[in-house]
Amino acid sequence: MSMSIILVVAPPNGTVDGNFFTYTGMRVVFEEDEPKNFTILKATSAEFPALNGQSVSYAVLEFPSGITNPPHTHPRSVELLFLVDGTLEVGFVDTKNNLFTQTLQVGDLFVFPKGLVHYQYNADSQNSATAISAFGSASAGTVSISSTLFATNIDDNALALSFKTDIATIQQLKAGLSPKP
Amino acid sequence: MSMSIILVVAPPNGTVDGNFFTYTGMRVVFEEDEPKNFTILKATSAEFPALNGQSVSYAVLEFPSGITNPPHTHPRSVELLFLVDGTLEVGFVDTKNNLFTQTLQVGDLFVFPKGLVHYQYNADSQNSATAISAFGSASAGTVSISSTLFATNIDDNALALSFKTDIATIQQLKAGLSPKP
Amino acid sequence: MSMSIILVVAPPNGTVDGNFFTYTGMRVVFEEDEPKNFTILKATSAEFPALNGQSVSYAVLEFPSGITNPPHTHPRSVELLFLVDGTLEVGFVDTKNNLFTQTLQVGDLFVFPKGLVHYQYNADSQNSATAISAFGSASAGTVSISSTLFATNIDDNALALSFKTDIATIQQLKAGLSPKP
Amino acid sequence: MSMSIILVVAPPNGTVDGNFFTYTGMRVVFEEDEPKNFTILKATSAEFPALNGQSVSYAVLEFPSGITNPPHTHPRSVELLFLVDGTLEVGFVDTKNNLFTQTLQVGDLFVFPKGLVHYQYNADSQNSATAISAFGSASAGTVSISSTLFATNIDDNALALSFKTDIATIQQLKAGLSPKP
Amino acid sequence: MSMSIILVVAPPNGTVDGNFFTYTGMRVVFEEDEPKNFTILKATSAEFPALNGQSVSYAVLEFPSGITNPPHTHPRSVELLFLVDGTLEVGFVDTKNNLFTQTLQVGDLFVFPKGLVHYQYNADSQNSATAISAFGSASAGTVSISSTLFATNIDDNALALSFKTDIATIQQLKAGLSPKP
Amino acid sequence: MSMSIILVVAPPNGTVDGNFFTYTGMRVVFEEDEPKNFTILKATSAEFPALNGQSVSYAVLEFPSGITNPPHTHPRSVELLFLVDGTLEVGFVDTKNNLFTQTLQVGDLFVFPKGLVHYQYNADSQNSATAISAFGSASAGTVSISSTLFATNIDDNALALSFKTDIATIQQLKAGLSPKP
Repeated sequence: MSMSIILVVAPPNGTVDGNFFTYTGMRVVFEEDEPKNFTILKATSAEFPALNGQSVSYAVLEFPSGITNPPHTHPRSVELLFLVDGTLEVGFVDTKNNLFTQTLQVGDLFVFPKGLVHYQYNADSQNSATAISAFGSASAGTVSISSTLFATNIDDNALALSFKTDIATIQQLKAGLSPKP
Repeated sequence: MSMSIILVVAPPNGTVDGNFFTYTGMRVVFEEDEPKNFTILKATSAEFPALNGQSVSYAVLEFPSGITNPPHTHPRSVELLFLVDGTLEVGFVDTKNNLFTQTLQVGDLFVFPKGLVHYQYNADSQNSATAISAFGSASAGTVSISSTLFATNIDDNALALSFKTDIATIQQLKAGLSPKP
Repeated sequence: MSMSIILVVAPPNGTVDGNFFTYTGMRVVFEEDEPKNFTILKATSAEFPALNGQSVSYAVLEFPSGITNPPHTHPRSVELLFLVDGTLEVGFVDTKNNLFTQTLQVGDLFVFPKGLVHYQYNADSQNSATAISAFGSASAGTVSISSTLFATNIDDNALALSFKTDIATIQQLKAGLSPKP
Repeated sequence: MSMSIILVVAPPNGTVDGNFFTYTGMRVVFEEDEPKNFTILKATSAEFPALNGQSVSYAVLEFPSGITNPPHTHPRSVELLFLVDGTLEVGFVDTKNNLFTQTLQVGDLFVFPKGLVHYQYNADSQNSATAISAFGSASAGTVSISSTLFATNIDDNALALSFKTDIATIQQLKAGLSPKP
Repeated sequence: MSMSIILVVAPPNGTVDGNFFTYTGMRVVFEEDEPKNFTILKATSAEFPALNGQSVSYAVLEFPSGITNPPHTHPRSVELLFLVDGTLEVGFVDTKNNLFTQTLQVGDLFVFPKGLVHYQYNADSQNSATAISAFGSASAGTVSISSTLFATNIDDNALALSFKTDIATIQQLKAGLSPKP
Repeated sequence: MSMSIILVVAPPNGTVDGNFFTYTGMRVVFEEDEPKNFTILKATSAEFPALNGQSVSYAVLEFPSGITNPPHTHPRSVELLFLVDGTLEVGFVDTKNNLFTQTLQVGDLFVFPKGLVHYQYNADSQNSATAISAFGSASAGTVSISSTLFATNIDDNALALSFKTDIATIQQLKAGLSPKP
């Protein structure tokens, strides 16, 4: 069958039907128990090729009690978070170093503007939280600040100067954040 | 406080804080009973001014049993539907008149490409369905085909010619779809 | 000869000269008699590869007396119609269901905004009409509403609900609009 | 009446109806005799405000016998010329100094890629020619090379060096091209 | 004088002449002695309004011996650094945590892709270094990672969890980086 | 090593490391004596493939005393010139034939808006001048007006009509500007 939509990635078997436009990888969210670890399930053009050439994607974030999604940026997109379970502390910092925070209730939306550092924190001591985030790009990208800085081999001295601390503190942070062998 | 993010719409009271980036208008979805009617709750730049200049928005769609969201297009955006409750028949037609359909299960995503006619239908005779849809625009716009054609004053003769039917059928369709006084 | 313009589609014989930038497929419009049927002649990137990567294309529309170009949308472009012969009724419906119409005279231009449903109708009982339409895309695409709805296999029940009519009326419309075997 | 299309320029009288989307300034082309002078009639967002925010516009060019439209560029758009009367010599030069030319017949289209220097020339000794040009911008802009260079006060010495000629030749060209008092 | 270029910001005195398109704020770089402190001199649309609506800007960076420009991102632009004096260590981290570094010599260019964390470090113990950086935006924006994290009031506990360290270390980093009263 | 940045052009040896993001072709500017001829050294995506998909590039222009960079346009970009040595006369003409000029001092920046004809002229009788220009495109393109017009085979008669001069003058200009065999 000929196909009049511009497809950047052809489906593996060459057939373009309703299945090509469907993604079932999120079903697990509705089947599983409460997550024990912080989990991010993504539906970007990498997992869901029908999104190629379309400017939208999703992620589902599940926060056990007391868990933080560490500061990060999305180089290619705004994030619009929709809290569908629990409560959540959220924040971002603008380019003039103003911090904007909020405690979200179930049903709330929060905007993290494009390219700015932001985080989420489930401060509730008992309940988990779940959020669905939409992005205005099929491939938003993520830069995790802590691992970008301290789980790569950036020069210790440059980092100590940057964070106005000593090399010992930098090395301690690196030890905590480096991937375990 | 000075604000370094480009804001197209200033908040009503002139204060830019965490509340400006928060939208609480969707909380009702999590508070209410099962909807009796088909409802669409939107968070676009019209309802949530912090989305101005950002390319993303949301809608929550609630389908009682047996209800159809009639064929429509979004002139300015793709739609990425996420089914969070129930089951849902969905479909769209490409510019070569191919129909793509799917029966979605809880947790499934489906892409409606930009500008194409699509619909959703809760064919389940007993259970309602709920979907969250993300759009790659802060203002996707909606063109409802049935009311565009038959609830405006397009010439009866032109419509009869277009749909290869008689004027009586056109007038009957108009009677059913026109806004009630 | 090396070519410094970015060409998305190389010409069939590999030669880029003045012919590559010329399209002769519209000459027939100036050679033929009055058309007996409604005809649309297009010069998009499909017929005229030099338009690839350029954001413009043309169509010539010829309307015998009493003929309608049924309601349709162009998902990827505005249409700017230029009436060069006859008179023509035109109209479009915006996203708030307002109908905008006009009776065009020879020499008039009319704008159909991007993504909105529009139609043309030669209401003159004797004379044909000819229009040249420019599009702000090399591949505007066309979604014909009547065939999208009634010449594909969208579920009869979903259509009846959408158009607030009975299944018999839907089946009658489908019979009139389905491609003949 | 509320209006759901984004209008950059409100109509003078505040009424948005079918007239706002109609431009009648081209009717004169179909009413007049053969032009004695080279004329360009434009329908850009300046003359036709409904084009604001839309990426398309038109010009009608009328060439008496033996007339040239001198070399120029459009900084913001491709031009797609449609010859509707007569014959026409056309040409453009790419960024590697290749000249592409064609002799167009009635009904032919020719593409002048964005930002490149091009010209048209009615070499026919007896008949006039008429072309309709579409642009992929509501405001394509025109840079006329001869008047840009020789009808402004660019330093004579800089021009003589640029064109590898003497100051007397530059001053002669300036005398021919400067606006008459 | 009427002005045919689209000007987003009118000049203060209403006169558009050659001065409006000239920026003299960088002259100081060529007049001064070696800088004692790290300095960044910017010519963005904020300092140079003629850049409004144009997608380019500059910064001049002067690095005394042993100085680091701490890790940061530009949310709205790539940076293309041109080293015009001294030597410079540079690096950036991609979204898969790969670190890309280089020791630049006078005359070298280095690309920091859009939105990624990067830094520069003058490791030379005696000589200063000077770089000119071009940006593909009139307003690239800068997010300084160290002050974003530790000179704003992000919750100590969330930061300790994010950096897998204790609250004491976070408070020590905050003390070093907070603005002095 | 996997690479998370979108690379349009893979490096020749398949290795993506710091060298791929470094361009050393400008070092010669800092090593050489005063140039005897006008030279333009470019770092666009053609010379420096890491710029593919990034919207920025550089050129270094060296002007011996008394030398002109003849009128030209860049079809795909604004130019932001930074004078780092000497003095320089600069000018551009807008689409209403206004000429904007300036005499730049060391350290000055000047904007040449996208698609407009501009030139530079080192009027100093003794000293050379050097400028660094940034472009808001990885491939700005250059249309040299003098060679576009007079070093290609545009019809002599069309040129004479365009410049309101005689064919002898056109042929003299062509003789001066044509490439030497």
